[in-house]
Amino acid sequence: TRQTDDTRKDKELHVKTTLRELIIYLVFLVFLCLLTFGMTKPTMYYYTKVMSELFLDAPFPDTKNTFRGITTMKDFWRFAETPLVDGLYWEKWYNDDNVTGDSQGYIYYENKLLGVPRIRQVKVTNSSCLVHSDFREDIKQCYAHYSESVEDTQPFGLMNGTAWEHSSEESLDGSGHSGRLASYGGGGYYLDLTHEKADSLASIIELKQNLWLDRGTRAVMVDFSVYNANINLFCIVRLVVEFPPTGGAIPSWTFRTVKLLRYVTAFDYFIMACEGIFALFILYYIVEEILEIKVHRLSYFKSTWNCLDVIIIIVSVVCMAFYVYRALRVDEMIEDLLSRPDQYSDFEFLGYCQSIFNNVIAVAVFLAWIKVFKYISFNKTMNQLSSTLSKCAKDVGGFTIMFLIIFLAYAQFGYLVFGTQIKDFSSVGDCIFTLLRIVLGDFNFHELQEANRVLGPIFFMTYVFVVFFVLLNMFLAIINDTYSEVKADIANQKSEFELTDYFKKGYEK
Amino acid sequence: TRQTDDTRKDKELHVKTTLRELIIYLVFLVFLCLLTFGMTKPTMYYYTKVMSELFLDAPFPDTKNTFRGITTMKDFWRFAETPLVDGLYWEKWYNDDNVTGDSQGYIYYENKLLGVPRIRQVKVTNSSCLVHSDFREDIKQCYAHYSESVEDTQPFGLMNGTAWEHSSEESLDGSGHSGRLASYGGGGYYLDLTHEKADSLASIIELKQNLWLDRGTRAVMVDFSVYNANINLFCIVRLVVEFPPTGGAIPSWTFRTVKLLRYVTAFDYFIMACEGIFALFILYYIVEEILEIKVHRLSYFKSTWNCLDVIIIIVSVVCMAFYVYRALRVDEMIEDLLSRPDQYSDFEFLGYCQSIFNNVIAVAVFLAWIKVFKYISFNKTMNQLSSTLSKCAKDVGGFTIMFLIIFLAYAQFGYLVFGTQIKDFSSVGDCIFTLLRIVLGDFNFHELQEANRVLGPIFFMTYVFVVFFVLLNMFLAIINDTYSEVKADIANQKSEFELTDYFKKGYEK
Amino acid sequence: TRQTDDTRKDKELHVKTTLRELIIYLVFLVFLCLLTFGMTKPTMYYYTKVMSELFLDAPFPDTKNTFRGITTMKDFWRFAETPLVDGLYWEKWYNDDNVTGDSQGYIYYENKLLGVPRIRQVKVTNSSCLVHSDFREDIKQCYAHYSESVEDTQPFGLMNGTAWEHSSEESLDGSGHSGRLASYGGGGYYLDLTHEKADSLASIIELKQNLWLDRGTRAVMVDFSVYNANINLFCIVRLVVEFPPTGGAIPSWTFRTVKLLRYVTAFDYFIMACEGIFALFILYYIVEEILEIKVHRLSYFKSTWNCLDVIIIIVSVVCMAFYVYRALRVDEMIEDLLSRPDQYSDFEFLGYCQSIFNNVIAVAVFLAWIKVFKYISFNKTMNQLSSTLSKCAKDVGGFTIMFLIIFLAYAQFGYLVFGTQIKDFSSVGDCIFTLLRIVLGDFNFHELQEANRVLGPIFFMTYVFVVFFVLLNMFLAIINDTYSEVKADIANQKSEFELTDYFKKGYEK
Amino acid sequence: TRQTDDTRKDKELHVKTTLRELIIYLVFLVFLCLLTFGMTKPTMYYYTKVMSELFLDAPFPDTKNTFRGITTMKDFWRFAETPLVDGLYWEKWYNDDNVTGDSQGYIYYENKLLGVPRIRQVKVTNSSCLVHSDFREDIKQCYAHYSESVEDTQPFGLMNGTAWEHSSEESLDGSGHSGRLASYGGGGYYLDLTHEKADSLASIIELKQNLWLDRGTRAVMVDFSVYNANINLFCIVRLVVEFPPTGGAIPSWTFRTVKLLRYVTAFDYFIMACEGIFALFILYYIVEEILEIKVHRLSYFKSTWNCLDVIIIIVSVVCMAFYVYRALRVDEMIEDLLSRPDQYSDFEFLGYCQSIFNNVIAVAVFLAWIKVFKYISFNKTMNQLSSTLSKCAKDVGGFTIMFLIIFLAYAQFGYLVFGTQIKDFSSVGDCIFTLLRIVLGDFNFHELQEANRVLGPIFFMTYVFVVFFVLLNMFLAIINDTYSEVKADIANQKSEFELTDYFKKGYEK
Ligand SMILES: [Ca+2]
Repeated sequence: TRQTDDTRKDKELHVKTTLRELIIYLVFLVFLCLLTFGMTKPTMYYYTKVMSELFLDAPFPDTKNTFRGITTMKDFWRFAETPLVDGLYWEKWYNDDNVTGDSQGYIYYENKLLGVPRIRQVKVTNSSCLVHSDFREDIKQCYAHYSESVEDTQPFGLMNGTAWEHSSEESLDGSGHSGRLASYGGGGYYLDLTHEKADSLASIIELKQNLWLDRGTRAVMVDFSVYNANINLFCIVRLVVEFPPTGGAIPSWTFRTVKLLRYVTAFDYFIMACEGIFALFILYYIVEEILEIKVHRLSYFKSTWNCLDVIIIIVSVVCMAFYVYRALRVDEMIEDLLSRPDQYSDFEFLGYCQSIFNNVIAVAVFLAWIKVFKYISFNKTMNQLSSTLSKCAKDVGGFTIMFLIIFLAYAQFGYLVFGTQIKDFSSVGDCIFTLLRIVLGDFNFHELQEANRVLGPIFFMTYVFVVFFVLLNMFLAIINDTYSEVKADIANQKSEFELTDYFKKGYEK
Repeated sequence: TRQTDDTRKDKELHVKTTLRELIIYLVFLVFLCLLTFGMTKPTMYYYTKVMSELFLDAPFPDTKNTFRGITTMKDFWRFAETPLVDGLYWEKWYNDDNVTGDSQGYIYYENKLLGVPRIRQVKVTNSSCLVHSDFREDIKQCYAHYSESVEDTQPFGLMNGTAWEHSSEESLDGSGHSGRLASYGGGGYYLDLTHEKADSLASIIELKQNLWLDRGTRAVMVDFSVYNANINLFCIVRLVVEFPPTGGAIPSWTFRTVKLLRYVTAFDYFIMACEGIFALFILYYIVEEILEIKVHRLSYFKSTWNCLDVIIIIVSVVCMAFYVYRALRVDEMIEDLLSRPDQYSDFEFLGYCQSIFNNVIAVAVFLAWIKVFKYISFNKTMNQLSSTLSKCAKDVGGFTIMFLIIFLAYAQFGYLVFGTQIKDFSSVGDCIFTLLRIVLGDFNFHELQEANRVLGPIFFMTYVFVVFFVLLNMFLAIINDTYSEVKADIANQKSEFELTDYFKKGYEK
Repeated sequence: TRQTDDTRKDKELHVKTTLRELIIYLVFLVFLCLLTFGMTKPTMYYYTKVMSELFLDAPFPDTKNTFRGITTMKDFWRFAETPLVDGLYWEKWYNDDNVTGDSQGYIYYENKLLGVPRIRQVKVTNSSCLVHSDFREDIKQCYAHYSESVEDTQPFGLMNGTAWEHSSEESLDGSGHSGRLASYGGGGYYLDLTHEKADSLASIIELKQNLWLDRGTRAVMVDFSVYNANINLFCIVRLVVEFPPTGGAIPSWTFRTVKLLRYVTAFDYFIMACEGIFALFILYYIVEEILEIKVHRLSYFKSTWNCLDVIIIIVSVVCMAFYVYRALRVDEMIEDLLSRPDQYSDFEFLGYCQSIFNNVIAVAVFLAWIKVFKYISFNKTMNQLSSTLSKCAKDVGGFTIMFLIIFLAYAQFGYLVFGTQIKDFSSVGDCIFTLLRIVLGDFNFHELQEANRVLGPIFFMTYVFVVFFVLLNMFLAIINDTYSEVKADIANQKSEFELTDYFKKGYEK
Repeated sequence: TRQTDDTRKDKELHVKTTLRELIIYLVFLVFLCLLTFGMTKPTMYYYTKVMSELFLDAPFPDTKNTFRGITTMKDFWRFAETPLVDGLYWEKWYNDDNVTGDSQGYIYYENKLLGVPRIRQVKVTNSSCLVHSDFREDIKQCYAHYSESVEDTQPFGLMNGTAWEHSSEESLDGSGHSGRLASYGGGGYYLDLTHEKADSLASIIELKQNLWLDRGTRAVMVDFSVYNANINLFCIVRLVVEFPPTGGAIPSWTFRTVKLLRYVTAFDYFIMACEGIFALFILYYIVEEILEIKVHRLSYFKSTWNCLDVIIIIVSVVCMAFYVYRALRVDEMIEDLLSRPDQYSDFEFLGYCQSIFNNVIAVAVFLAWIKVFKYISFNKTMNQLSSTLSKCAKDVGGFTIMFLIIFLAYAQFGYLVFGTQIKDFSSVGDCIFTLLRIVLGDFNFHELQEANRVLGPIFFMTYVFVVFFVLLNMFLAIINDTYSEVKADIANQKSEFELTDYFKKGYEK
C-alpha cells in the first residue's frame, strides 16, 4: 500500500499548497477592498445629492417647473435666469445679510466655485438636410440632427464676442459630450459668466434678448466645477439641454463627485500604504504568472482561471498607470486655475477619466471576487454545487440561445408596435431590457394597452405565458436534473482526502 | 456495411441541404430586419414625446390641471382656450418678438401645421333612451350612450355654419374613431380653425358662449397634422374628450408618428434596395412553396412549419400591396393639401393605415424569427431542449385549460365584486389581465381592500395561494418531468450524424 | 370476454350520462353568466369614477388640499364650504349662464339629486374615559373612542334644531356605518341641506361658526343619492370624516353604484328571461338533489361535490329571495321620495343590501365555475393533472400549516416592531397580507429601514431568505414529486375507455 | 412479542408526555401573545400618523415645500417660523375664536404638550479639518464631519444665554442622537420655547436674525413630548435637520408612540393579570430547565432546542427587569414634570428604552413561535417536511456561502460604479439589500441606466441572468432532491406509533 500512501502524501501536499495560495490570495483581496473603500464613501452620494437638488429641483418662479421638466427653449431661459444664478451665487445669508469677504464664492456657503461657469451651445447649419421635393417650395429651412459634418461655425446674431462667434474644440481645449440624442463636439459658441450674480444675469438676459438659441441650436451646456475643502471632494457639473430636430427640449445632466486630491487626512495615508502593498502584490503575481507561462507555454491560456489571472493583472497595471497620470495632471490644473481665478477651468475631462478609472477598478474587484471560486472546491458540499454549475453550463448556454431567439422575436415585435409611443420600447436595446424587467415584475401594463389596444394585451399575455410560465421553468429543469446527477455521482465516489482531513491530521499531531 | 454507408451519405446530404437552406434563410431574415429598421427609429419616440408633452402636459392657467386630467366640460374649454391655441400657434419667439414671414405656422418653430385644425363633436338626440316609468314625470330628458342610430343630426344653437349644422361622414370624407367608451362616426358638427391665433381663439370662445357642448354631446375631437421636414416625419394628432352619459369627461388621445414620405436621405435609398431584395426573396419562396405543394398536395399543410411558411408569405405580400397603395395615396393628398393650405387636411385615415401596416410587418418579423427554430434542432443540446418543449406541449396545454377555468372563476368573481370600484376590474377582460399581473407582482392590494374590506383580502389571499403557490408550480413539474424523460431517451439513442460531424469531415478533407 | 364487454358497456353508459350532465351544466353556467352580465357593466365603473372625482379630487381653494387629504377639523370645513356645495349644486353652465327650469338639480347636469343631502355627526360624552391619576389634576376632559355606550345624546351649542339636538337611530330610520376606526350608530346630530346652493352654504357656515364639531365629535357623515336616468343607475354616496381620540381627521368614503330599477331597455327584458330560465334550472337541480339525498341519505354529504351542489342551490335561492324583496322595497321608497322631494331620502341601506347581493351572487358564480372540475376528469391528461392536485393536497395542507407558523411568527414580530410606524404593519391582519405581498415583490423596503434601522433590514433579509428562497420551494418540491408519481402510476394503468373513444365510436358508426 | 408491547407502551408514554408539554406550551404562548396585544394597538399607528402629518406634511407658506423636503438652512427657518409654531400652539378654534382656559396647550386640541419644546444644535469648530496644501491660501475655513472630538463648545453670536453658550451633555441630562450621517452628543446650544405662540416665534426669529445656524452647525434638533389622555399614550417627537459638510440639509425624524403609563382601563388590568401568569410560567420554565441542566450537564447545551429554551427565558427575564425599572422611572419623571410645567422635559431616553423593550419582546415572541416546531414532528406529514428542511440545511448553507460571494462581488461592483449617484448603492450594506430587492422585482432600472449608460445595463443583465435565472434555481434543486430522498426513506420505514394512533386508542376505550 505504498502507492496509496504516496498518493495520499501528494494529496496532502496539494492541499497544503492550495491552502497557502488561498491565504495569500485572501490577503491580496483584503488590500484590494481596503483600497477601493479609500476611493468612495457614502458622503460622495450626499454631495451629489445636495448639488443636484440645488440645480435640478429648484422650481422656476412662474411655472413651478424644474430643470428636470424642461420642454421648450423658453423653459431653458427660465432656468438660466433664476435657479441657475441663484444656485451659483450665494451672495446673501438666510437672514438676507450680505455674504462678505472670504466667504463669497461658495455654493451652499461651503463649495468653492472653481473658475467661472461656462454656457456653451453647438449648432447645425441651415440646409443641413434635404427637404422632400413635395414640400421644397413651402419649407425653405432644414436643420438636421447634430453631427460634426453639419456643425455651424459661422458667426450669427450680434456677430461679436465668443457667444456669437464659433470657437473650435482645440482653441477651447474642451472635451465633447455624449448626450441622449447624439455626441456633441467640444467646440461651439460660449459665454463665460463672472463671479458676480448681477453681471452674470445681465449677460444671460442679453443672450436671450438677441435670440442666442435658434432653430439651429442642437444642445446647450452649462459647465462648472466646485471644490469642497471640508471633505476634499470635487463636484464637476454639466447641465445639458438638447434641442432635437423634432422641436422641444430634452434635459440631461452629469454630477461627477470625484476625489482628485489624495492624501490629506491620516486615513488617506493609510490608503497610500495599502496602495503600496497592492503594487507589490501585483508585482508578485506578475512574476508568478510569467514563470507559469514559461513552463506551460500556450497550454497556459487554455485554463479559464489562468486567463482570469492575466486579465486581473492587466487591469491592475492599467489602473496604476492612470493613477500616476491623474496625480500629475490634477496638480498642474489646480496650479493653473489658482493663478487665473477669473477664467473657466475645464475639469470635465479629468472627471470623466476618474469615472472610467473607477469603473475599471470595479471590474478588477469583481473579477478578483470571482477568482475566490478557484480555491473553494476543496469542501465536498462546495464541490458538489460548483460541479453542478459547471456541468449544466453547456445546457444552460444552449437554452439561453433558444431563449434569446424568442426574446429577440418579442423585442423586435415590441419595437415595431410600441416603439413610437413608449420610451421603454423606443430602441431594440431598451426592448430587451423591458422584456427582462417584465419577467421580474417591473412593467407598466397600462402603457402597453394604451399604445395598442389589441396587440398590447396579446403581446403581454403570450409573452408572460411563453417566457414566465414555460421557458423560465426550463432553466430550473436543467439545473434540477444536473444537480440530481452530480449528487448521485459524488455519492458513488470514494471519499477523497479533503481539507477537513488535513485539519484533522494537523490536530492529531 | 454498404447500407450504413448509404444512410450516412443520405444524412450528409440532408445536413448539407438544411445548412444551405438555413444560410439562405438567415440572409432573408437580415434583409427583413434591415427593412424594419428603415421603418422606425428612436427619433420617432422623441417626436411623439415632444408633441404629446406640448398638448397633454401644459397646465391650464387657473386650475393647473392638464388635458390628461379633464373631468368636466368646463375643463375642456379651459384646455381649448389656452394650452390648445398656445400649442398650435407659435407666433412669438421666447423673447416675445413676433415670428415673421416664412417662419410662421410652425409648432415648436419646427413642425409645419398641415392645413388647419378641426374641432368636431358628435351628439345624440334627446329621448334617445327610455326613462323608467317611476321617474318619467320628473325627468324629461334622456341622452343615451352614443350609437349611430341615435346620433343627432339636427341643427342647434346658432343654427348656422358647420359648427351648428350636422355634416355627414361622407361629406366630410372623414373617418370614425374608436374611443374608450364607444366607436364614433366620422360625421358631426365641426369648426375649422384658421392659421391665426387670435381668430381661432375668438371662434372657440364663440362656441363656448353659445353652449356648443351640451348634454347631448358624446365626444369632441380636435384633429390636426404636422410635418417635420428636418426628420421627414408626420405626426397626426387627435385629441378626444368623451362625455359619457354618466356626466363628467374622459380624455384620450392618439399621436401617430409616421413616415409617409420615403426616400429622402441616402439611407432611405439603401432601404429601398433592401426592399427590392426582400421582394425577390418573397418571389423565390413563393415559387419554392408552390413546387412543394405540387409534390405533397394536401399533406403539405399537415406540417406546422409549412403553414408558417405560407402565412409569412401571405403577410409579406399583403404588406407589399399596401406599400404601393400608401405611396400613391400620400402623393395625392399632399398635392391636394399644398394647393389649398387653408383647409383641413385629413391624414387620420392614412396614419391609421400606416399603423396597421406596421403591426402587420411586426407580426411577419415575429413569425420569421420563430421560423429559425425549424433549422435549429441540428445540434444535440438544442434538439434535447426543443423536444422537451414539444413533448410537454400537450400536458402544458391541458393544464392551461384547467388553469384558465380557475382564472375565469376568479376573473368573474373579481368583476362582480370590484367591478364598480376599481378600473382594473371594470370589465372581464381587464380582470384577466389584472389576475395575470398579480402573479408577476404588479398589483394594488390597498385598492382591493378599500373596495371590499372582507372579500378583497380573501380574494387576494386565496388567489395567491391557489395560483402562485400551487398551480404555477404545476407548470414547472410538467416541464421538469418531461425534461428528465427526454434527457434519458436521448442518452439511450445512438449518437447520430450531426452538424459538428459535418464540419469535422469538411475539416479533415 | 362477455364480462369485459359488459364493463365496456357500463363504461360507455357512464360516459354517456356524464356527458349529458356536463352539457346541461354548461347551459346552466351560460345562463348564470349572462345573468351576472346583466347586473354589472363597465359604465358602472365610469359612473363611480366621475362621481368620486367630483367630490374627492376637487381642491380646496386656499390649501389646494382635497377630501382625500383631510387631516384637521378645519380641513373638513374647507371641504364643506367649497368642493361639497360646488359638487352638489350645478346652478351655472360652463359659460356662467344660469341653469334654469327642469335642468336644475342635476349633478354634472345629468344626475338627479334624490331628496336633499344630509350632514350628520356622532359624538361621545366628556369623561367617557378615565384620566390616569397622575394627570387627573391637569387634564379635566377625556373623550374616548366611539362606542354606543358612551355616545353623547345631550343637546349642545345652540341647543335648537336637529343639528344641535340628538336624534335616535329609530327616529331617523337610518343605518349605522362601519368606518375605519369604529362602527358608528345610525343616530346623531344632523342637518338636512336644501335644494339651493346659497341656503345650504349659509347653513354650513352657521354650523362652523358655532363650533358644531368639537372634541367629542367622532365622525361626521355626508349622505346623498343621485339617479342617472340615461343609464338607469343610482349612485349612493357617503363621505365620512372620522376624528379619532388622537386628534386629526381620517377621511373615508363609499360610492355605491347600483342598478335598483330593473327592466327598462330591451336587453333588460332579455335578462329577465334569463332569470326565469335560471329559476327553472334551480328548481330542476333542487329536485335532482332531493332525489339523490333520498337514495344515499347521509352518505350523500360525504362527497365534496354533493356539498358544493347543495351550497350552490342554497346561495341561489337566497339570491332569488332577496331579489323579490329588493324589487318591492325600491318601488316603495321611490314613490315615497317623489312625493316628498324636499326631504332626505335614505338609500344607504338599500345600496348596502344590493352590494351584499352582488357579493353573494359572485360567490355563487365562483362555486359554479369550480364545479366544472367535477366533469373534467374524463380526459386522460386532465385526470393526470387533477389527481396530482388532489394527491398533493394533504402534503400541501400540512406544509401550509408549517408555513403559517413561520408566517405568524414574522407577522407578530413585524407588528410589535413596526406597528406604530408603518400602516401595513399596524395590525396583525395587515402584517400577514404585507408578508404575503413581500413574496410577490410588492413592498417598501425604505419604510422598514426607516422604522427600525437595525431590525428592519434583518427582518427583511431573514424573511426573504427563509420564505422566498427556502419555504416557497418546498411547495414546488411537493408538487413536483407528486406529479412524477402520478404520471408513473397512470402510465402503468391499462388505458381505460375514454371520452375520445366514445366520440370515435360514434364516428365509426 | 412482549418486547414490542413494551416499546409500544414506551412510545405511548412518550406521546403522552409530549402532548402534555405541548398543551402547557400553547397556554404559555397564548398568554405571551395576549400580553403583547396589551402593548401595542392600531390606535398607536394612527397617533403616529396624525402627529407626523402635522409637522412633516404641512407646507411652508411661500415655497409649498415641507419638512420632508428641506434642503437648505433657509428651509429650516421657513419650517420653524410657520409649520412648527402652528403645529405646537393651537391657540384658535377653526372658526378663529380663541382657545381659552383649560383647553389651551393641546396639540389638535387633544394632546397635552408636556413641558416646553427645545431647539438644540451641535456644532464643529472651524479648522476641524485640514485643507489640502494647494488650496490653503484661498480657503481659510474648514468644518469637518461631526465627531465628539471636534465639537465646538465656544460661545458665539450674541454670546449670552443658552442659545449662544454651550451646555454639556451632563448639564442637560440629555441623550445623544444617532442621525443619518453621524451620532451626535447630547450637549450643544439650545433654546427652550415657551407655552405661548407669539413668544416662541419671537425667540426663533431672533435666532435667525443673528445667524444662529452657521457653517459649523452639523445638526439642529427640535424635541418635545405630548400626552394624550383619551388613549393614555405618549408621543415623543424629535425633528432633526442635519447639515453635512457638503452643504445642504438632510431632514429626519422620530415619532415614538409609547404607552408609558399602564393600568388605566379594565383591559389594562386584565393584561396585568396576564403578566402575572406569564411571570409564573417563566418561573416554572426556569425550574424545569435548571433540573434538566442538572441531569444532562454540558450535553444539555448540545441540543438547539434547549439553547432556544434558555434564550427565551433569559430574554423574558430581561424584559421583566426593564418592566419594573420603567414603571419607577416614569412615575418619577411625571411628578417632576408636573411640578415644573414651564421647563423642558426629556422623555427621549425613556421613549428609546421603551422601543428597545418592545424590540426585545418581539424577539422573544418570535422565538417562542419557532419553538412550536419542537413539538410538531409528531405527525407523519409534518415530520417528513421538517426532516426535509433539516436535512437540506447543510447543502443550503453551503450554497448560501457561494451565493454570498457572488452577491458580494456584485455589491462591491455596484458600490464602486453607482455609489456616488444612486442612494440604494451609496454604501455596501445598501447594495446588498438592493441586490436582494432586484430578485424580488423591486428596482429602478432607469436609475441604473442613467448612472452609467454602459455598465448599468450590463450589471443588471448579468446579475439577473446569473442570480435570478441560475443561482436561485439551485436552492430549488437542493430542496427538491432532498424532499424526494426523505419521502422515499419514510415510505420504507415501518409505520410508527403516532399521535393519531394515540387518539384512536383513547377513542376505542
Ligand atoms: Ca415579482
